Amino acid sequence: MDVKSKIGIRIKELREQKNMSQKDLAYSADLDRSYIASVENGQRNISIVNIEKVSTALGVTLKEFFNNGKFDNNSTGS
Amino acid sequence: MDVKSKIGIRIKELREQKNMSQKDLAYSADLDRSYIASVENGQRNISIVNIEKVSTALGVTLKEFFNNGKFDNNSTGS
Repeated sequence: MDVKSKIGIRIKELREQKNMSQKDLAYSADLDRSYIASVENGQRNISIVNIEKVSTALGVTLKEFFNNGKFDNNSTGS
Repeated sequence: MDVKSKIGIRIKELREQKNMSQKDLAYSADLDRSYIASVENGQRNISIVNIEKVSTALGVTLKEFFNNGKFDNNSTGS
């Protein structure tokens, strides 16, 4: 699985755990809802500033965001 | 400290631990050396695909990359 898809799944997972809609998340992250939808669909090569905005809106640090099995192996590497 | 600076410092830290030059890192990450230099200087809003390329070249997973005190607190958040 490529990293864009991993990020999308992780965001959706955290968002649903918090019972937030994409609209809620977009509002509190100060991003467009359509952008959130495309990120969750693995269609965006999201930047670190936006990953941090989304993480903050989801109530997790970047450390917590990436502390997940999906990120135990890099997609491009071995 | 903003997240771009945190990322830059983390990359430099890992690179130096591995005794790699910016040129070495750029070569194995398949990125430009000048790009690596500007990322390390906190001047780039680096994308997740490039963070993963750099992490792979540094021999760490994304989980390991962000498993660092710098990422215990989000810059934009509380």
